[in-house]
Amino acid sequence: MKDANGIEVPTYEDMLAAHERIKPHIRRTPVLTSAHLNRLAGCEMFFKCENFQEPGAFKVRGASNAVFGLSDAQAKLGVATHSSGNHASCLSYAAMRRGIPCHVVMPRMAPQAKKDTVARYGGRITECEPSTTSREATFAEVQAETGGDFVHPYNDPRVIAGQGTCSKEMMEQVAEIDGGALDAVVAPIGGGGMISGTCLTLATLSPDTQVIAAEPEQADDAYRSFKAGRLIADDAPKTIADGLLVPLKELTWHFVSNHVSEIYTASEEEIVDAMKLTWKHLRIVMEASCAVPLAVILKNKDAFAGKRVGVIITGGNVDLDKLPWMRG
Amino acid sequence: MKDANGIEVPTYEDMLAAHERIKPHIRRTPVLTSAHLNRLAGCEMFFKCENFQEPGAFKVRGASNAVFGLSDAQAKLGVATHSSGNHASCLSYAAMRRGIPCHVVMPRMAPQAKKDTVARYGGRITECEPSTTSREATFAEVQAETGGDFVHPYNDPRVIAGQGTCSKEMMEQVAEIDGGALDAVVAPIGGGGMISGTCLTLATLSPDTQVIAAEPEQADDAYRSFKAGRLIADDAPKTIADGLLVPLKELTWHFVSNHVSEIYTASEEEIVDAMKLTWKHLRIVMEASCAVPLAVILKNKDAFAGKRVGVIITGGNVDLDKLPWMRG
Repeated sequence: MKDANGIEVPTYEDMLAAHERIKPHIRRTPVLTSAHLNRLAGCEMFFKCENFQEPGAFKVRGASNAVFGLSDAQAKLGVATHSSGNHASCLSYAAMRRGIPCHVVMPRMAPQAKKDTVARYGGRITECEPSTTSREATFAEVQAETGGDFVHPYNDPRVIAGQGTCSKEMMEQVAEIDGGALDAVVAPIGGGGMISGTCLTLATLSPDTQVIAAEPEQADDAYRSFKAGRLIADDAPKTIADGLLVPLKELTWHFVSNHVSEIYTASEEEIVDAMKLTWKHLRIVMEASCAVPLAVILKNKDAFAGKRVGVIITGGNVDLDKLPWMRG
Repeated sequence: MKDANGIEVPTYEDMLAAHERIKPHIRRTPVLTSAHLNRLAGCEMFFKCENFQEPGAFKVRGASNAVFGLSDAQAKLGVATHSSGNHASCLSYAAMRRGIPCHVVMPRMAPQAKKDTVARYGGRITECEPSTTSREATFAEVQAETGGDFVHPYNDPRVIAGQGTCSKEMMEQVAEIDGGALDAVVAPIGGGGMISGTCLTLATLSPDTQVIAAEPEQADDAYRSFKAGRLIADDAPKTIADGLLVPLKELTWHFVSNHVSEIYTASEEEIVDAMKLTWKHLRIVMEASCAVPLAVILKNKDAFAGKRVGVIITGGNVDLDKLPWMRG
């Protein structure tokens, strides 16, 4: 379906089809709760733990939808992307499961652990310099040579339809727990893939549930775009929530501008505090990016008081030797 | 039921009754898997995550069974125990849920965080000196003053019947995942409460499933007792798996000597390696004690090759500022 600006927008039916397509390849991750965190926050929270996906992040949903939706002819040529984060490893993982090539362009100086994870799943890495120019030139070469289908980390309708399956499961699971619904779902926002998928699903499945985005103060392009009513690019953001450095694009801006109720931001210190609090009381290993929702809930208690709030824990690929509360 | 030595031993029916009694007060914790850890170990593992209980440990099962099984008259006087670990906080938590007093004798130098947790759940702490003599004398005083019912951390049939509910759930959940059973269940052994409950349940529910205990080399009284065929006391054990320092007692020895198939031990380094591996790939926060099962599986691959193995993750109350791989 195309929107008023001619952008191809995924539909609710695309999300339902995605869920059927990817079910054999992803986990129905558990929803965890903590009475102690609920008391601290003054609301009832349900944490959907996508850190428990095999490759450690929700991005396996969108990646699997793209990979398993390819025609056989295209599948032979494989997929290609540029990413140094969870999208690269999740796309490699999905391609490995279908037995097709996955080409990944990564900055030369990306952490070795990230390269190792992509390689473990059979992803073929081509290194580039750490500039947009080099990345785009290198990626164009790789794509021309291989014919790999470009799967963007978030600005792709197949990817957003896949991410939308997460909140479908969460609504089902919360209903299984106590028969109730959710007043709001809070997810971190970087490029906006998860938030867009959440909007896509809830706009039809549960239109009374608010979708709220949580963003680091130090990478607040979505917040500033939302307040201005137009897409504003970020200026060299820097945050410990390093999964959220990338900017919104046209397709994710479509969902953010049309369906998101509010965007709240949190400081670096608030993010680290919320991260440690979650590790301690929910007892899960998750990335700093996943702590931004709890940070904004604790900071805006009045907005959430007494509500039932879904929180999406987006990923759990953490360097255990460099936790933010550890000293060198 | 009394055994040949006149010890009161809980029955399978006691375990079933315990499960009905405690269901409203505990969580049916999820079972997690990791294809990556399975590849490393050469077997298929199912991790039952008791670290996700609200007070962070399986001990809430036995404690809740004891607390909610009390007569109203006894309940008014409350419960009492001596412990500086998860039993103290779990018993306080269960007593708080029934609204009755819980008296806890703890060494004066127990970590402040442990005292805070007990206090958060309304437990009333009496401090003692760090000797058996002082602990026993102080506990006798507290019990005489309050009339609180003594709930031993593990040498109590009500507690063992409660712990047995964990492997009942695990067998049900593994069957829900893929319809299969388990060839073995591996759990850490300290005082032997969880292992005894596991034996109690599986001896009837799934007699072909082996029960295997995992113990730190540096606190190996169960291993030495098992090999000698008689109860041998430990001599000032010291291990990073600090939930496993306590020795077997008559009742847990009954189960260990009659139903356990094997006891394997692991070194401190093997335990820390397995702990970090689990945090990284299963993405859960758990205590060093919970890593002993994976450590012994990785160390004895031939014994587990190709098998379906349940692993009980016993608790997740960790000092995040003092992880074993962190430097001061």
